[in-house]
Amino acid sequence: MKKSLIALAVLATSGAAMAQSSVTLYGVADLWVGKVKGSSVQMVDGGVAQSRIGFKGTEDLGGGLTASFNFEQGLNLENGATDPRTFGRQANLGVSGAFGSVKLGRSTTALDDVFGAFNSGFDSALSANAVWQNIDYTDRADSQLYYATPEFAGFSAAASTQLNGDRAAGAGRESSFHVKYANGPIGAAVGYEDDAAGQKGTLVAASYDLGMAKLLGSVYTTKPDAGARTNSYQIGADVPLTSALTLSVGYANSKVKGAETDSAFGVAAAYGLSKRTIVYAGFRAEKRKSALADADVFAVGVNHSF
Amino acid sequence: MKKSLIALAVLATSGAAMAQSSVTLYGVADLWVGKVKGSSVQMVDGGVAQSRIGFKGTEDLGGGLTASFNFEQGLNLENGATDPRTFGRQANLGVSGAFGSVKLGRSTTALDDVFGAFNSGFDSALSANAVWQNIDYTDRADSQLYYATPEFAGFSAAASTQLNGDRAAGAGRESSFHVKYANGPIGAAVGYEDDAAGQKGTLVAASYDLGMAKLLGSVYTTKPDAGARTNSYQIGADVPLTSALTLSVGYANSKVKGAETDSAFGVAAAYGLSKRTIVYAGFRAEKRKSALADADVFAVGVNHSF
Amino acid sequence: MKKSLIALAVLATSGAAMAQSSVTLYGVADLWVGKVKGSSVQMVDGGVAQSRIGFKGTEDLGGGLTASFNFEQGLNLENGATDPRTFGRQANLGVSGAFGSVKLGRSTTALDDVFGAFNSGFDSALSANAVWQNIDYTDRADSQLYYATPEFAGFSAAASTQLNGDRAAGAGRESSFHVKYANGPIGAAVGYEDDAAGQKGTLVAASYDLGMAKLLGSVYTTKPDAGARTNSYQIGADVPLTSALTLSVGYANSKVKGAETDSAFGVAAAYGLSKRTIVYAGFRAEKRKSALADADVFAVGVNHSF
Repeated sequence: MKKSLIALAVLATSGAAMAQSSVTLYGVADLWVGKVKGSSVQMVDGGVAQSRIGFKGTEDLGGGLTASFNFEQGLNLENGATDPRTFGRQANLGVSGAFGSVKLGRSTTALDDVFGAFNSGFDSALSANAVWQNIDYTDRADSQLYYATPEFAGFSAAASTQLNGDRAAGAGRESSFHVKYANGPIGAAVGYEDDAAGQKGTLVAASYDLGMAKLLGSVYTTKPDAGARTNSYQIGADVPLTSALTLSVGYANSKVKGAETDSAFGVAAAYGLSKRTIVYAGFRAEKRKSALADADVFAVGVNHSF
Repeated sequence: MKKSLIALAVLATSGAAMAQSSVTLYGVADLWVGKVKGSSVQMVDGGVAQSRIGFKGTEDLGGGLTASFNFEQGLNLENGATDPRTFGRQANLGVSGAFGSVKLGRSTTALDDVFGAFNSGFDSALSANAVWQNIDYTDRADSQLYYATPEFAGFSAAASTQLNGDRAAGAGRESSFHVKYANGPIGAAVGYEDDAAGQKGTLVAASYDLGMAKLLGSVYTTKPDAGARTNSYQIGADVPLTSALTLSVGYANSKVKGAETDSAFGVAAAYGLSKRTIVYAGFRAEKRKSALADADVFAVGVNHSF
Repeated sequence: MKKSLIALAVLATSGAAMAQSSVTLYGVADLWVGKVKGSSVQMVDGGVAQSRIGFKGTEDLGGGLTASFNFEQGLNLENGATDPRTFGRQANLGVSGAFGSVKLGRSTTALDDVFGAFNSGFDSALSANAVWQNIDYTDRADSQLYYATPEFAGFSAAASTQLNGDRAAGAGRESSFHVKYANGPIGAAVGYEDDAAGQKGTLVAASYDLGMAKLLGSVYTTKPDAGARTNSYQIGADVPLTSALTLSVGYANSKVKGAETDSAFGVAAAYGLSKRTIVYAGFRAEKRKSALADADVFAVGVNHSF
């Protein structure tokens, strides 16, 4: 690396003492023990969230602008393996300011960022919507351009796409967007994806917090590149029983046009042991009339974030 | 991830500033230069301990309970490679309290935790017991349930096993335990393993510290799933010459039933340059009468921990 | 690991609280968007420097000696992938003092350490010398012994090689050295490599800082193990337009004996947004008369170090 340029002088000393203060090391360790119908009792990573370790940091650029980076690798507590791409969860560089924020690199898609937020069962391995079919939406994509607006009167939006030269041969761009609304007891989101294979997916979701319970619902429609349109929905409620204990119940339904319907009912409880550690437990009972076998599950798990 | 649940509120902000204080980044860089009989002089990773980098942390859950995690990856200073599973050394989540401690995930086995502690030659690449045969005991296992008791009057014990659903097809559980005793000059341990392939191994070890020297001895018996019973033992002594310099001598012997005996004699010295850096040197002379070739070794190395 | 030896006592507690203060976590996130002739606009990692994350630390050994380690992994912000060897950029252990410094393990070669320092275009993906042919010199090598002298009157030197036992079967040692001079406005370096395949390369480079511009030039001659001698050179200038903005222009030329000449002209600008974030832009126009196709490039990128 060039050592003499003034403009690059600090870069050349990459990682001096100052570095320490600008990086946040964070992560999750999440594991559950349970039984999936037809299998023996086993230990599985990531009931509520995949285990991971990440590095992120920001720098004030002046003029209201902030530079940021995020490198995040998922890992599997069952065996210590990471994604073959190591930093497959997040590997991006961004800048934010009054205009919103832009991220470049591998990151979640705009659809993914709202996909789970309205799921009952804490968007976990216990959620009823595990029976949703044709849910091969893209959670993360390579070489993304991601733009998020600032929040305005409860509204915010984001869009992600790829450059022409970053498409695979013969494939299209992975493009998606979302619009969110959050104001007092009301939450809502719309998300849309047109993936590299031409599959389109649309999510419409809403929640209303009654205080004694928060009602949740969403509809997801997907038109696969090959195969029939699929309509899926779910409804549920998160019920705070104490300040630490929340119960969540949900029902989900999914139908591929011209085929039978799959459905499931789930109940889960999450108890906050501390600021960073949660225990969770529950079950999901499935009723699949399609060709797929029921995968009823009972689970007890721990989620520890750091 | 669900953003609205009170119980999950902190989880959703995974990796906030607080995170920084709860994670310890640690590791080892260990490399030796030496000559193995029949080879040229070379550089080899991990004379005393494999090079590694790890992340661990704890959280006080109140009521005397502590949550903890540990992600640890080994690396090879020869070429920078890590284990294909990245966090193959440790990937687990635990809780400890007055009852002892429980760990879930990939970790060392209970047998491994006492296997090296009574070896002469600092349990290094110079130790005499490198000639022990059929020592394919399991040092780490996936999806383990690991329980360790508190210490009581110098005694402590641990056991590790796997759930039914985490066995490989047609294989058994990897199960092991140990009992340790440490009181004044006396140390002792018993360890036992019944591995996934049905191989059984038993370790009995003891030490006595005379002040001018610490005597060490252990016996390991293994009954491979295929092949004959193997009996191995070693004796040795660690002699502190100064506060920083320790000499260790050892003799090891190993015999597969019905076959010839292998033995070795080793001498090693370790000198503490500082709190975290040690230089070590020594040799092992082998006398293998079995089909295996002698692998006499001369080595000088450095172990730096951080 | 052995727990009882005094000399190894601290090693056994590897990763205690003290560890925290001795490790520096550092890295680079660098991404450009641009167009290479014949391709569509795309996002590419590492315009100025490959994205990376690293861990390094030092320990004062007393007597003027310092122990150090460095583990560094490259990553690709396009998709989050790291080198298959994970810590493929740096994985070494060293000691330094009045005698200079010694590093053992995987590291850059002595030639690599001066190879880019005299390149125009900030030694980036925009540099004119991308047209240099037979530049398969070894940037990093496994199991290296690396020695660097202290600086004396502006002069310093380094040499790297491998042990006999660390050569691949039928291959030679990777050996290289450099001598550098830096004093006031004058900079110069000579570098030489004799690689594992017997290819030899020689770099002679110099710079002179006029204040209003820094002139740069280098000549690289390589004698491949198979094929003809290749002579390459480049000239350029870095022009500081403001304290934050630097313009760099360069011309490079490369000729394989008996074949046609390739050349290129490049212009690049680097603007320091802050201490750790730089934006860069530029183009390189190629004129290749050899069998290779022109790979003219236009790029705009961001380099963020932490």
